[in-house]
Amino acid sequence: MFQSFEVTARPEQGPPRLDALRAQMSAAALDGFIVPRADAHQGEYVAARDARLSWLTGFTGSAGFCVVLGDVAGVFIDGRYRTQVKAQVADVYTPVPWPEVSMAAWLLEQLPTGGRVGFDPWLHTVEQIAKAQKALEGSGIELVQSANLVDAIWDDQPAPPMSAAKVHPLEFAGESHDDKRVRLARTLVEAGEAAAIITLPDSICWLLNMRGADIERNPVLHGFAILHSNGAVDLFSEPSKYAGLEAHLGGDVHLHAPDGFLDAVADLQGPVRIDASTVPQIVADALGDAAVAGAEPCALPKACKNTAEVEGAAAAHLRDGAAMVEMLCWLDAQPIGSLTETQVVSQLETLRRRDNGLQDISFETIAGTGPNGAIMHYRVTEETDSTLEDGHLIVLDSGGQYLDGTTDITRTIAIGTPPAEAAEAFTRVLSGMIAMSRLRWPRGLAGSHIEAIGRMPLWLAGQDFDHGLGHGVGAYLSVHEGPQRLSRVSHVPLMPGMILSNEPGYYREGAFGIRIENLLVVQEAPALPSGDAHRDMLNWRTLAFAPIDRRLIVPDMLAPDDRAWLNDYHAQVAAKIGPRVTPAAKEWLDRATAPV
Amino acid sequence: MFQSFEVTARPEQGPPRLDALRAQMSAAALDGFIVPRADAHQGEYVAARDARLSWLTGFTGSAGFCVVLGDVAGVFIDGRYRTQVKAQVADVYTPVPWPEVSMAAWLLEQLPTGGRVGFDPWLHTVEQIAKAQKALEGSGIELVQSANLVDAIWDDQPAPPMSAAKVHPLEFAGESHDDKRVRLARTLVEAGEAAAIITLPDSICWLLNMRGADIERNPVLHGFAILHSNGAVDLFSEPSKYAGLEAHLGGDVHLHAPDGFLDAVADLQGPVRIDASTVPQIVADALGDAAVAGAEPCALPKACKNTAEVEGAAAAHLRDGAAMVEMLCWLDAQPIGSLTETQVVSQLETLRRRDNGLQDISFETIAGTGPNGAIMHYRVTEETDSTLEDGHLIVLDSGGQYLDGTTDITRTIAIGTPPAEAAEAFTRVLSGMIAMSRLRWPRGLAGSHIEAIGRMPLWLAGQDFDHGLGHGVGAYLSVHEGPQRLSRVSHVPLMPGMILSNEPGYYREGAFGIRIENLLVVQEAPALPSGDAHRDMLNWRTLAFAPIDRRLIVPDMLAPDDRAWLNDYHAQVAAKIGPRVTPAAKEWLDRATAPV
Repeated sequence: MFQSFEVTARPEQGPPRLDALRAQMSAAALDGFIVPRADAHQGEYVAARDARLSWLTGFTGSAGFCVVLGDVAGVFIDGRYRTQVKAQVADVYTPVPWPEVSMAAWLLEQLPTGGRVGFDPWLHTVEQIAKAQKALEGSGIELVQSANLVDAIWDDQPAPPMSAAKVHPLEFAGESHDDKRVRLARTLVEAGEAAAIITLPDSICWLLNMRGADIERNPVLHGFAILHSNGAVDLFSEPSKYAGLEAHLGGDVHLHAPDGFLDAVADLQGPVRIDASTVPQIVADALGDAAVAGAEPCALPKACKNTAEVEGAAAAHLRDGAAMVEMLCWLDAQPIGSLTETQVVSQLETLRRRDNGLQDISFETIAGTGPNGAIMHYRVTEETDSTLEDGHLIVLDSGGQYLDGTTDITRTIAIGTPPAEAAEAFTRVLSGMIAMSRLRWPRGLAGSHIEAIGRMPLWLAGQDFDHGLGHGVGAYLSVHEGPQRLSRVSHVPLMPGMILSNEPGYYREGAFGIRIENLLVVQEAPALPSGDAHRDMLNWRTLAFAPIDRRLIVPDMLAPDDRAWLNDYHAQVAAKIGPRVTPAAKEWLDRATAPV
Repeated sequence: MFQSFEVTARPEQGPPRLDALRAQMSAAALDGFIVPRADAHQGEYVAARDARLSWLTGFTGSAGFCVVLGDVAGVFIDGRYRTQVKAQVADVYTPVPWPEVSMAAWLLEQLPTGGRVGFDPWLHTVEQIAKAQKALEGSGIELVQSANLVDAIWDDQPAPPMSAAKVHPLEFAGESHDDKRVRLARTLVEAGEAAAIITLPDSICWLLNMRGADIERNPVLHGFAILHSNGAVDLFSEPSKYAGLEAHLGGDVHLHAPDGFLDAVADLQGPVRIDASTVPQIVADALGDAAVAGAEPCALPKACKNTAEVEGAAAAHLRDGAAMVEMLCWLDAQPIGSLTETQVVSQLETLRRRDNGLQDISFETIAGTGPNGAIMHYRVTEETDSTLEDGHLIVLDSGGQYLDGTTDITRTIAIGTPPAEAAEAFTRVLSGMIAMSRLRWPRGLAGSHIEAIGRMPLWLAGQDFDHGLGHGVGAYLSVHEGPQRLSRVSHVPLMPGMILSNEPGYYREGAFGIRIENLLVVQEAPALPSGDAHRDMLNWRTLAFAPIDRRLIVPDMLAPDDRAWLNDYHAQVAAKIGPRVTPAAKEWLDRATAPV
């Protein structure tokens, strides 16, 4: 099993570790120390060695940070984690609602003038430090670069991850790393830049067509890179990981030990591009005046998948869809009241593992039944494991990391007879999901411009949900990948080849949750007889194929065009997935995809 | 008649005036001079005295500017006016596509280092000058403040407008100007500001509950004002206009001659708020270091109409709707081929004038039949006047300035038998217009977040239109009023009381145009049984009531909910407007509002 149901928070370990950290602060003449969730690569997941926040405090959420002062230790957590944090940390830690309360505002309240707060300059981006320093300006409170004081007290800190690098074959990558490097180098030349710094592991792996397993759920390798304007790359990553990749890397990619990175950066002759939102403060310091602000060079090229990547994702989704269909068929066959959430998660992973291409799950499966479904980022543990009961809806949000693509799919399934209001809400969520799937729009629009389409049916009933409509997805890389999003705050124009999730939901606290999610890819819209000749329009191609629970649909609430879309989609599911599943599952599938 | 059909462009007057201006430039040792369309108040319409751009060049569009150099004179015009400018200016003027080509970029191309370009610092905002100066930085080309060289050569320049100020009664204003001044002054105190500069005539008229007629179509008075943090106002406007308003203005509004404005500004002790997007450069210069950037203090309060203003607008729309119904009935009764566009415009104005509250039309009526309908900002003249022919659609976009409100309504009417593709496009436009009218959305969203709802039916057919979905509208003030808009570039959250137009369209060049427009007002959405208790949602109340041409609707293309909305709307039109029109029009109205 990739997934574990272990309760990892150990509140009782917090107090002694906090005492030890405060002793380090005193020795370093610091009044405070910041412990972020992030590592030097700012990803959503971190290696065990970098899980400093949870080691110190017990809090295991995917975002947040702790600021330790002499007499108070604030754990800053966003709205998703307000309940969780209380269960996971001892009372020597004080939860702080963030971003409502910023770190700077909190420091201004807690610390006197002259206060010195330490931070590890590898773990904070240029943007984060600049923002905090601006807010503290004139206060007399100072942010001070420091060694990592958590590492200093963490006796059994795990070693850095050492997974072996593997070639990501051209068949799946679609473009050689020579071509990628030359293409990106051209943008540096055009911008008059000598080099660019790359600190995101997925960017480095994308650029050099390789994958690893340094971080769970993310097939990447830890490292830093310098892309030069001649297309050469200096890669700073443990060389022993790259045994056998010499020929693949070729003569223009130079491998170095990680500890040479800062000196190499300092030696660069500028201008050198850094993305302030991803690059650690220490890198900017090493560059000094040579640094110029710019976009992370791989972000947009990586987001716009090429044909091989799109077709790879489509192929992975067909195999993933077969596992989903087997799962849904199995689930329907179990007696009501006989299953718990962890059994559902285990069964789904077992079915996905039958695929030889599966490398990992793409994130911790969310399986929330009944009231647990209303917890948007629910992760089932031994302690919370609940039985699927009559009248429940279960939200099942999961995905796989396959060699040819990353999947992420959510289905909500009725257990027994669900309440009418749940079916009505489900049908609204489905209407929004279909409206977005059917959309075509003029090139140039961003997620903020079209997200409303997926929410409108809920809005008309006075309902809504408190997460974005969708996120970008990588090509056998991170399941959450920028810069594109279907969100009211996303201003990045959608471009052909971008893969996004389309996942409206509805959550009634203490009662039920609903989410329906397919991955879609942006493409140039085919011409229509009625279409304006001069308009350049885009639309979606749906990648995910799995039935949507007909028992939760109120057919009369669907507009005729939306109902036609659903029936056509289900016909495609039957045609594409039917040949890939067992006879029993095929029989079930034919019933599950009958027209409504 | 308010509206004239005169051809006002006189290309032949351009060359001698250009010569005279160049002589002035030489005398002032300038290599160039900028002639904007705007006056010192940056409105959409200008008084005759301020129509410098059209006097010099012949170009009568509502936006643009001319930059006169020694050997070339560029007329900068946006996409709406590319065709019009060619017909209106002599060939001594060179049209420049703007904003694709910025003034600075053009100057860099045309002028050598050391070039000095004059501008009248009353006619350009702080933002405009800052932007141009930034773009010219290091080029050696200098922007130089100058007297207005057009005024120097304009022998028969009209006098400044001298309309009499009238009290805008509390019955319509809904809030005394004492209360408004105190309310706004509080925001200055909170911001630590001593005063704010107000240079927008509609802001001044809104703040002081008065109206005038200094600018056609806009019931405003020219003037400048200083709002002090104690709530007092210094008003700089020709005092003779205000005879009889002493009691209304009271003891806290001090009237001064306009020429005292700059000295008074210079004497202010800061911080003084200026809105860089509206305040003239010369005002910022007079303030010097006392100036702080901020929002125009009246903009948002003025946009959020109070109950009296909303109910006034609703009442004005009912009377305006009666004129529209009489018009549509009359139009249907005329033999096909017997009417031209100017006759339609005249008849509509005649019908509106029967209302004693009508003070003006709110803009030049757009009446475009057949291919003219595809010209979005078409203004019919004696030269372009066209006959309404069988198979035409006529776009009729018009409005009135009533004492209790400003209206703006568009209907598209079939003449004889329109082509099927026009009816199909009309039905899509209508679907979008209905979808927006029916919308409810969470508080906090801006126009950019929801505009797509009104375009989606066209998008699905590969169609779209090249203007915003809607603009803000004043309360017996400007028909185009900010800051709110239904546009992909508008990030101002929609708030209760904001009046906006909802006007999707479709334009096929050389063939036909379609636009359907109602004014709507944002309100707190009434609770729904299905609604989430904790969600704060807004929706629209429709203000405009007039039939939508059923002959252009393809009923099967309307979703059931949209069709129900239309039939309900038409029932309301019949009920609200029927009792207000002649028996013949009522009979016509009953037929025109029958269910589809």
